[in-house]
Amino acid sequence: MVPLRVDGERLRNAVETLATFGNDSGGGISRSTFSTADTHARQWLSECCREAGLVVREDGIGNLFIRAEPGDAAAAERLPVWAGSHIDSVPSGGRFDGAAGVLAAVEVLRCLREQRVPLARPVEAVVWSDEEGCYQGLLGSGTLVDGLADDDLDAIVGREGRTLRQALAESGRDPNTAVRAPQKPPVAHAYLELHIEQGPQLEDAGLDVGVVTGIVGLVHGQATFTGRADHAGGTPMDRRRDALRAAAAFVLGLPALPSQVGRPDSVVTCGDLRVAPGADNVVPGQAVCRLDFRDPESQGLSDLRDAVVALAHRCAKEHDTSVELDWAHVADPVFLDADLQELIEASCAQLGYGSMPLPSRAGHDAQKVATVAPTAMVFVPSQGGRSHCPEEYTDPEQLARGADVLATAVAELAGSPKPRDDG
Amino acid sequence: MVPLRVDGERLRNAVETLATFGNDSGGGISRSTFSTADTHARQWLSECCREAGLVVREDGIGNLFIRAEPGDAAAAERLPVWAGSHIDSVPSGGRFDGAAGVLAAVEVLRCLREQRVPLARPVEAVVWSDEEGCYQGLLGSGTLVDGLADDDLDAIVGREGRTLRQALAESGRDPNTAVRAPQKPPVAHAYLELHIEQGPQLEDAGLDVGVVTGIVGLVHGQATFTGRADHAGGTPMDRRRDALRAAAAFVLGLPALPSQVGRPDSVVTCGDLRVAPGADNVVPGQAVCRLDFRDPESQGLSDLRDAVVALAHRCAKEHDTSVELDWAHVADPVFLDADLQELIEASCAQLGYGSMPLPSRAGHDAQKVATVAPTAMVFVPSQGGRSHCPEEYTDPEQLARGADVLATAVAELAGSPKPRDDG
Repeated sequence: MVPLRVDGERLRNAVETLATFGNDSGGGISRSTFSTADTHARQWLSECCREAGLVVREDGIGNLFIRAEPGDAAAAERLPVWAGSHIDSVPSGGRFDGAAGVLAAVEVLRCLREQRVPLARPVEAVVWSDEEGCYQGLLGSGTLVDGLADDDLDAIVGREGRTLRQALAESGRDPNTAVRAPQKPPVAHAYLELHIEQGPQLEDAGLDVGVVTGIVGLVHGQATFTGRADHAGGTPMDRRRDALRAAAAFVLGLPALPSQVGRPDSVVTCGDLRVAPGADNVVPGQAVCRLDFRDPESQGLSDLRDAVVALAHRCAKEHDTSVELDWAHVADPVFLDADLQELIEASCAQLGYGSMPLPSRAGHDAQKVATVAPTAMVFVPSQGGRSHCPEEYTDPEQLARGADVLATAVAELAGSPKPRDDG
Repeated sequence: MVPLRVDGERLRNAVETLATFGNDSGGGISRSTFSTADTHARQWLSECCREAGLVVREDGIGNLFIRAEPGDAAAAERLPVWAGSHIDSVPSGGRFDGAAGVLAAVEVLRCLREQRVPLARPVEAVVWSDEEGCYQGLLGSGTLVDGLADDDLDAIVGREGRTLRQALAESGRDPNTAVRAPQKPPVAHAYLELHIEQGPQLEDAGLDVGVVTGIVGLVHGQATFTGRADHAGGTPMDRRRDALRAAAAFVLGLPALPSQVGRPDSVVTCGDLRVAPGADNVVPGQAVCRLDFRDPESQGLSDLRDAVVALAHRCAKEHDTSVELDWAHVADPVFLDADLQELIEASCAQLGYGSMPLPSRAGHDAQKVATVAPTAMVFVPSQGGRSHCPEEYTDPEQLARGADVLATAVAELAGSPKPRDDG
């Protein structure tokens, strides 16, 4: 294994340039998938890559594959090594979540070409479409793995109210090309995703690299409390069936649930709450809480869900309302490839960077890809553990060290013509 | 005093027809001011009135004045007796709030003409524009009383995001004609408003008519809690500064405030709560609570406001967030005209209907008009005390009895040429 080092200054500049697409008035990044900012960012990225001699291809759902071709034709036929992440952001998000992994992967490709690293197979930087779920979480990687039905194009509706079909068409794509069958493994020799940690563990430990052991399972859902809309003046306080009171009690009860079910490191979040009718002078008749909870194990997820249901019913009853729970989206916990984890640790050792194993408590495209290719993740530190916000920050030197590790591991994987099963 | 009786069946039909304008899929009425439904409702009402020989005029802000002319020219010059209310509704509101008072007033005018009641002054049914505040609470009556500046046309923004200037223009009006100077009293000989009670007191007491003693003061405002937007996966539960948790604690603390400040009959409501960024996978960085509280006395309002401020700061501190409070709109408590209350009681007695004095805990155009003309209100029972909802209901016979009282009182007031100061 040969330690490779990327051009950290070029990577830093790329991060800064990408952050000019979709930067909003509050200092954050609002680059939702298929938006104008997304289109412009893709154009800029594709142009940079073509200038660097890389081949850029987009699939029907908007996944970008940026390819460094190996020297000979036999090598070009072999399964590629993938490195990637996403460039879409949550509303008012930061400049590193996703972007860091994509730009590090592109930097790795440039570095492989410039340093004339021998490739026994193609290497591709992959930009997954809509990881953050403006339309559906992990849309691009999910489509690659699970396929996408024609009906989904109309059933999936984005945050701004457009169907997926409309969004694809309005951004200049042919929606019909997004439809595809599920993929059979293996689709790649290996997939490596560099990402910011989005938690405080690396910073707390003073280390540069996290070798991700697995990705938490994720349940999304919503609790709809229904009371009675009444006049805010005429209705005495003790005659109200105020849905917002029930929802508020529910929100306040959530933080205690992980400990209650013996999973103190799990997280449960109500990220949005909507009130109907929502007028100043009307007692709320309905309140909808959007939910997100995560645990590294299926049993933990299931215990958390039971606790959420029990809490919701208790709060509904206390406030003379009813509640309905819906579970919209579930991702199973994923354990990442042990051999690839070892390879990343060895790369860190070769480069002299300190690393530690740790789980990912955020969802990533890697959890989808892991079902069709050997997959691992490289975490770099998040200052203050902050992410999904304008203050999200990773030190450029630490990002470059992560990219060095990615380059070293990718070179090692791409240097061998042997299928991994034989390895 | 001669007891007058209206045509209850015609009144009942009018209520049913008006409810066809703006009826929404949930069975409620969504007839916001300057909407298409509002325009159609006004056209229907104006046509009915013209057919009945009444003269219809609209002022610049959309107040309708429907006039029954007295017989002689001298009488036509005297200050009119007004009876009225509004026809706009809250979103998903009911068919009686406002509408009952307008249709009862129109029925009274028809009844005065048909029964050839001698008029010593004009009688006008007044339809006040935007009582419910799609643009601004009590907009029409407020404009008549306090005037409206040109700047207000741009500063006042409706629930759907249009400025008042846009809404007026788009509904076919000339916004410039809405601008006017404050009015000097007296603008009318008397103003009587029939309205549903929007509370349970008449029903509980088994009485037909409430003689309103005064209207509670009203404070609107909002509490904006600011925490820190963070990743819902990566951020441990104990490191969050979740603005929604603070807002939830605040919402739950509100119901106890009236008793805490010794005003157990006051009401305080959070009618809407909005979360930013509002994504499933982001810890809420901001939560905005819209507030409404009411008390019959200025001191009570002031005590309630202090208690709301203290609660907000306590909740913000407990959840490591900050809070800012804004007070958007204040209406002072109003005591209604004692002579007119006596007249209404006497009318009830003449007609043989049971009545009781009671305060209004909802705001009404009457509170604006009371500052420029002697004003009183007639309440009819609300089934279950419900209002501002599809289930809002008043028994047609009880509504007709309220209209009888209105007719009897209006006839008495319009029958005399004497100014009220001499009376």
